[in-house]
Amino acid sequence: MKICIVNGPNLNLLGTREPDVYGPTSFSHYLDDLRERYANQEISYFQSNHEGELIDHLHEMGFSAHGIILNAGALSHYSYSLADAISAIKSPVIGVHISNIYARETFRHTDVLSSRCAGVISGLGLQGYEMALQFLLQRSV
Amino acid sequence: MKICIVNGPNLNLLGTREPDVYGPTSFSHYLDDLRERYANQEISYFQSNHEGELIDHLHEMGFSAHGIILNAGALSHYSYSLADAISAIKSPVIGVHISNIYARETFRHTDVLSSRCAGVISGLGLQGYEMALQFLLQRSV
Amino acid sequence: MKICIVNGPNLNLLGTREPDVYGPTSFSHYLDDLRERYANQEISYFQSNHEGELIDHLHEMGFSAHGIILNAGALSHYSYSLADAISAIKSPVIGVHISNIYARETFRHTDVLSSRCAGVISGLGLQGYEMALQFLLQRSV
Amino acid sequence: MKICIVNGPNLNLLGTREPDVYGPTSFSHYLDDLRERYANQEISYFQSNHEGELIDHLHEMGFSAHGIILNAGALSHYSYSLADAISAIKSPVIGVHISNIYARETFRHTDVLSSRCAGVISGLGLQGYEMALQFLLQRSV
Amino acid sequence: MKICIVNGPNLNLLGTREPDVYGPTSFSHYLDDLRERYANQEISYFQSNHEGELIDHLHEMGFSAHGIILNAGALSHYSYSLADAISAIKSPVIGVHISNIYARETFRHTDVLSSRCAGVISGLGLQGYEMALQFLLQRSV
Amino acid sequence: MKICIVNGPNLNLLGTREPDVYGPTSFSHYLDDLRERYANQEISYFQSNHEGELIDHLHEMGFSAHGIILNAGALSHYSYSLADAISAIKSPVIGVHISNIYARETFRHTDVLSSRCAGVISGLGLQGYEMALQFLLQRSV
Amino acid sequence: MKICIVNGPNLNLLGTREPDVYGPTSFSHYLDDLRERYANQEISYFQSNHEGELIDHLHEMGFSAHGIILNAGALSHYSYSLADAISAIKSPVIGVHISNIYARETFRHTDVLSSRCAGVISGLGLQGYEMALQFLLQRSV
Amino acid sequence: MKICIVNGPNLNLLGTREPDVYGPTSFSHYLDDLRERYANQEISYFQSNHEGELIDHLHEMGFSAHGIILNAGALSHYSYSLADAISAIKSPVIGVHISNIYARETFRHTDVLSSRCAGVISGLGLQGYEMALQFLLQRSV
Amino acid sequence: MKICIVNGPNLNLLGTREPDVYGPTSFSHYLDDLRERYANQEISYFQSNHEGELIDHLHEMGFSAHGIILNAGALSHYSYSLADAISAIKSPVIGVHISNIYARETFRHTDVLSSRCAGVISGLGLQGYEMALQFLLQRSV
Amino acid sequence: MKICIVNGPNLNLLGTREPDVYGPTSFSHYLDDLRERYANQEISYFQSNHEGELIDHLHEMGFSAHGIILNAGALSHYSYSLADAISAIKSPVIGVHISNIYARETFRHTDVLSSRCAGVISGLGLQGYEMALQFLLQRSV
Amino acid sequence: MKICIVNGPNLNLLGTREPDVYGPTSFSHYLDDLRERYANQEISYFQSNHEGELIDHLHEMGFSAHGIILNAGALSHYSYSLADAISAIKSPVIGVHISNIYARETFRHTDVLSSRCAGVISGLGLQGYEMALQFLLQRSV
Amino acid sequence: MKICIVNGPNLNLLGTREPDVYGPTSFSHYLDDLRERYANQEISYFQSNHEGELIDHLHEMGFSAHGIILNAGALSHYSYSLADAISAIKSPVIGVHISNIYARETFRHTDVLSSRCAGVISGLGLQGYEMALQFLLQRSV
Repeated sequence: MKICIVNGPNLNLLGTREPDVYGPTSFSHYLDDLRERYANQEISYFQSNHEGELIDHLHEMGFSAHGIILNAGALSHYSYSLADAISAIKSPVIGVHISNIYARETFRHTDVLSSRCAGVISGLGLQGYEMALQFLLQRSV
Repeated sequence: MKICIVNGPNLNLLGTREPDVYGPTSFSHYLDDLRERYANQEISYFQSNHEGELIDHLHEMGFSAHGIILNAGALSHYSYSLADAISAIKSPVIGVHISNIYARETFRHTDVLSSRCAGVISGLGLQGYEMALQFLLQRSV
Repeated sequence: MKICIVNGPNLNLLGTREPDVYGPTSFSHYLDDLRERYANQEISYFQSNHEGELIDHLHEMGFSAHGIILNAGALSHYSYSLADAISAIKSPVIGVHISNIYARETFRHTDVLSSRCAGVISGLGLQGYEMALQFLLQRSV
Repeated sequence: MKICIVNGPNLNLLGTREPDVYGPTSFSHYLDDLRERYANQEISYFQSNHEGELIDHLHEMGFSAHGIILNAGALSHYSYSLADAISAIKSPVIGVHISNIYARETFRHTDVLSSRCAGVISGLGLQGYEMALQFLLQRSV
Repeated sequence: MKICIVNGPNLNLLGTREPDVYGPTSFSHYLDDLRERYANQEISYFQSNHEGELIDHLHEMGFSAHGIILNAGALSHYSYSLADAISAIKSPVIGVHISNIYARETFRHTDVLSSRCAGVISGLGLQGYEMALQFLLQRSV
Repeated sequence: MKICIVNGPNLNLLGTREPDVYGPTSFSHYLDDLRERYANQEISYFQSNHEGELIDHLHEMGFSAHGIILNAGALSHYSYSLADAISAIKSPVIGVHISNIYARETFRHTDVLSSRCAGVISGLGLQGYEMALQFLLQRSV
Repeated sequence: MKICIVNGPNLNLLGTREPDVYGPTSFSHYLDDLRERYANQEISYFQSNHEGELIDHLHEMGFSAHGIILNAGALSHYSYSLADAISAIKSPVIGVHISNIYARETFRHTDVLSSRCAGVISGLGLQGYEMALQFLLQRSV
Repeated sequence: MKICIVNGPNLNLLGTREPDVYGPTSFSHYLDDLRERYANQEISYFQSNHEGELIDHLHEMGFSAHGIILNAGALSHYSYSLADAISAIKSPVIGVHISNIYARETFRHTDVLSSRCAGVISGLGLQGYEMALQFLLQRSV
Repeated sequence: MKICIVNGPNLNLLGTREPDVYGPTSFSHYLDDLRERYANQEISYFQSNHEGELIDHLHEMGFSAHGIILNAGALSHYSYSLADAISAIKSPVIGVHISNIYARETFRHTDVLSSRCAGVISGLGLQGYEMALQFLLQRSV
Repeated sequence: MKICIVNGPNLNLLGTREPDVYGPTSFSHYLDDLRERYANQEISYFQSNHEGELIDHLHEMGFSAHGIILNAGALSHYSYSLADAISAIKSPVIGVHISNIYARETFRHTDVLSSRCAGVISGLGLQGYEMALQFLLQRSV
Repeated sequence: MKICIVNGPNLNLLGTREPDVYGPTSFSHYLDDLRERYANQEISYFQSNHEGELIDHLHEMGFSAHGIILNAGALSHYSYSLADAISAIKSPVIGVHISNIYARETFRHTDVLSSRCAGVISGLGLQGYEMALQFLLQRSV
Repeated sequence: MKICIVNGPNLNLLGTREPDVYGPTSFSHYLDDLRERYANQEISYFQSNHEGELIDHLHEMGFSAHGIILNAGALSHYSYSLADAISAIKSPVIGVHISNIYARETFRHTDVLSSRCAGVISGLGLQGYEMALQFLLQRSV
């Protein structure tokens, strides 16, 4: 089953950036572990700090993937273009936030993507990606 | 491991109530299935339409349970008393919403409990409870 | 025909409480008179200061009654749980306010239940209950 | 007893206009039936799409009528001039809305006339006029 | 003189709950001390996590007590039903908050009960109850 | 010198309408007195409850009068059409309110006409018209 | 093809009124030119400063015209009655604003009619009417 | 008759300060002229840039003067202390603004003093002081 | 023990000013009585209508007094400078309001000083000063 | 005459994406047709999902083109950078929205680009581009 | 060159007051150092906790100084009188905040003086004064 | 010392774009001059209209540069992604705005980056960059 993980701005710095908020693990490290444990699944990965590249990528994958796991970083709080991209594609999208955005600054309480996603997982750390993955796998059964 | 599932107002009508929003499965049916699949875990269940009983229950379980999975129904949108109860106890609480609250009426976009929860899962249907359970199990390892 | 009248918080004090706002008649006195005049109808009555008990009662009556006349008192202004209970049941609900809530404090101008009710009557004093009753009787013809 | 029914903008199209919202009955048809059933009462009727004519009419009737039943249509949401007219006259005014304005667009949730009316009936369809009539008749006893 | 102290949700956990905010003393310990020092006064005590029980209790005591000292916990921020109960009874009510609610989260800055109370004391810790008591005693002289 | 006094909705009821707010004098009585005292001035008068007639009148007079004294009644609070009419004409307009609108209901605190007027007089009772008249006379000297 | 052009308050002063905003051409001059260039079309014209007359006119034309081009002037910013009239009729309505309302005062940024119109053209000067006309002609092909 | 004129912050610079907004005349020049024309009246004058001195002055004059003409400058927009001083004294206060505050920046549209004044005159330039004076003289007759 | 009582604008008029709100007792009368009853305490008193003098006084006393009892009058609602002065000094400050500010005009519901105070007492009349005094005395034990 | 059509995010999916909102025609199909019908005009076309590329393109074309037709998609609702680019260039820009943005979700009612555009066309479907083209052609005559 | 440094409320306590926010250096110490390093410039200094004295001082210096460096402390957040004083004088004013006001409490994010200043420097600590000085020196070259 | 200057959208047009707001000097011209005057410093420069490239660049420079001077143009008003990038890197960032953003349109008054910057300089024209440079140089001593 083909699942895409898509990370937005500043998530390339995971492990380096504000480790008390986002934890000490780099995403590539986490991804290796995830792929090992879900070896039968085809898990693609894409990260960009560019809203436009994220939209392009959703357009490219969004008609063939079984599901997309999207952590759009701070774009979640204002990118209506990304929101429209989610509506425009066919694959279900699960939104993931590593930290609990509702326990942080006020501007993070508004997630303009969430209403377009099938569901949202917030605050479960990196495990949130795996929860989303499991949801998509079970759902496709 | 002892995990509590706590459901708030109107969730006793699950399966009957607005099935296009909440699905056709009753919660007891889902719970039986869940307990069967996670037979080694001690999964307690409590439902009430009374805010006060939910608070009492959190007080009772919240110092010994390994984790609490809480779907407070519409109380999520205004019960600061329930929010304070979550802060007052020791067990981690995962908030679960069956439907994607961010894709529904505006008043549902505010969840006054979420900032007190360890994490929140919204829109994954009944599977959200299982995702929360798995998170608590993995976390406790 | 089975009609339920349901009164919420503080309405047990009717006649005693702020008589310049709510009038000098106790509800039981009014109810006796109403039942006498509509002797062929089965008019049940329930009052509680507990949100949870009101929800339980709506669940209990809301699949068999021909109609429910609900004056939720101040819960009208914030109880989304009660609102969801109205949506969850089958019987039509008519909201009644004794005083004209739109001519009082600002917080009373928002009635979170009204959008779920079939209709709302406000400011007609105790007569509002009878108007609601007549509506339900005529509607069922 | 002299009762005036006053309808505001677009209510002349009742039966034609958005029948799924306002029903298929024309007002004149309904009025004939009402007058028949309340044959001892003097029920006058006035409809206008002009705010000024409605104010003129309230001034004209508002010192002699036993009561006025007013459905000001969309003027209800902004006409402070009409509101002041209600305050300026002596006859009690009952506000009526055919549809449940609280279950429709946000701008309809604000009724600037309601605080000046003796009471308001919303969402009971054309029956709302009759309920208002009965209230005025009983009140005058 | 008969004085009632009424505590709302989560105050049963005082001493256990967030001791850096609410202090390390349990309420029963404090109450014993208070009763000892004010031995000639009849000081009743009631605590509940249920809004409805608090309303019932106010109704029960509110026509005979010389004064009520009410710390409604987080219900202070949204329970208009409790607010109406204060208006409905005869005994003067003094609102007490242990912590300074104006120095905490924004939602705590709104106390919907305060306008109905004779006065409010906030941030004086457990001493606030005693200050309220002294006020009620002096007032009754 | 030609001066127009223009009164809006409900001001025809002056002397009758809410005398505690607007005083016991009818406008025609006041106008007779004013004309007598300013006998050399040509003082025209127009009152209407119709926004459209008020606009028509401003268009008609607004290119020849030395000044217009306008009390638009409650239209002051929402009639942007009247506001645009004031901008569209040449004669200076002085806004007058008999009562002090800033000491009344909140909706009266917004006067959408005031920014288009040369000046505004509020709360000086019927004398406000004379003050405006004197201003226009002195200004034209 | 029968097309109606309907102009609201103050547009009778076009050419005279604030020429730096609305241009120096009177509407009748423009209309003559338009009718000449679209000689095969039946182009009716109506202007009023009265909200009520505009509603009456929409009711009269709105079941037979192929399209209506409506510039409601400042009524666009508050006349929910006109908005409801657009919803109540059958003919498609194109909203036109001569100036770019979004580049002017804040109150002009809200156009309560636009959601009921088939489309809106703003800021193209008098040409906006012709663009709307062409749209209606092409659409009807 | 004893009338006090009180000017607030920056009005000492009148004639120098932003002459396109406030005009080219200094206040002392205007005052000389005014006193000459109203020679039988005792017109006192006080200006200060200090909120506290203005309050002190109102306290000093406010129990004996026949009226106070107050232009509080920008303090009008936030000084609730000055507002309370107006309520605390006996003499009627007329608020005056030289420029039309409703046609300037948004923060000037809120005048926290106006609800405490007997009336307000705005935008009539320095003549506003004379209009207020005349009002007070006529009123005292 | 050295305790400072500091009163802000208009409190010099206590007993004279709006006696129905603030009571008929002058502050000096009350203070004499208080000093008599707490003869062992050094109770200083300062009143000013000047924000700057109040800040100067807090700076002067705020490093040596055991506690400060501050009723800043209407400055409570906007003086962030006074708020910063409270934060800048060492002595604990108890805010006192004679009337219940939460039961009065909306602007009084915001007290920008309260978050900087150790605690706040509102609505207990002049007794509030004594309650604050007792709190400071007990606290220092 | 050189005219640029510029499309923003997700408009590359036109015909595929939500056809009930945006119609079934792909833009390239529409463009071919348009170019054929306006064969004497030089119509360039650019689409990008990248805000930065759109700004770069406006900078490149905006000093030589006779006009630019811009449908910025969802960037219209938040891209102040694009707004500033429109202000920074010389060519007039006409904003086009295929759907009627004022009849859709609330966030679409704010178009931060519109105040910088010469004019805006909304809701006329793909014809909106042609209307804008005709406007630019006529304007340049 | 004559440059004035003007400090507002509580800045006399610099070095003592909240040293973690404002640093440990007293202003006089810093000023000595600054004057030494800029020995050819005439640097005057004024501090006051009184809004009125600050306005008086700006009036006094503001027509002869080459520039004014103003840190108005918390008055920055509400003193429209000070704002008007800046507009009323001729010398350019540079606003300085020692701490980064945008990273502190919400009320500090609004600086009502900034729109009247030539420029604003925030968060550069005491160096901000020197930066402002350098700007004024370079500017005058 | 290595200092990076980073300019955002539309700043490549400096000198061309709205010269009355941003001045007539191109940035490259200014930069040459700056580098000449600060010849011992390594001053890198980067400009982009792409949010993503600006984030990439901050990531690249932000762990080695001694300081970053960032003028993010209109991205300052909404790019939370850029804000998070500032938080994610180690180098201190000084925000610079050429014009005084607080004296322009309302949307420019919100700078979502400022709370993450060490400090902000606004309205000092191109000199703002030099002031920031000097701050960084002095700070590093």
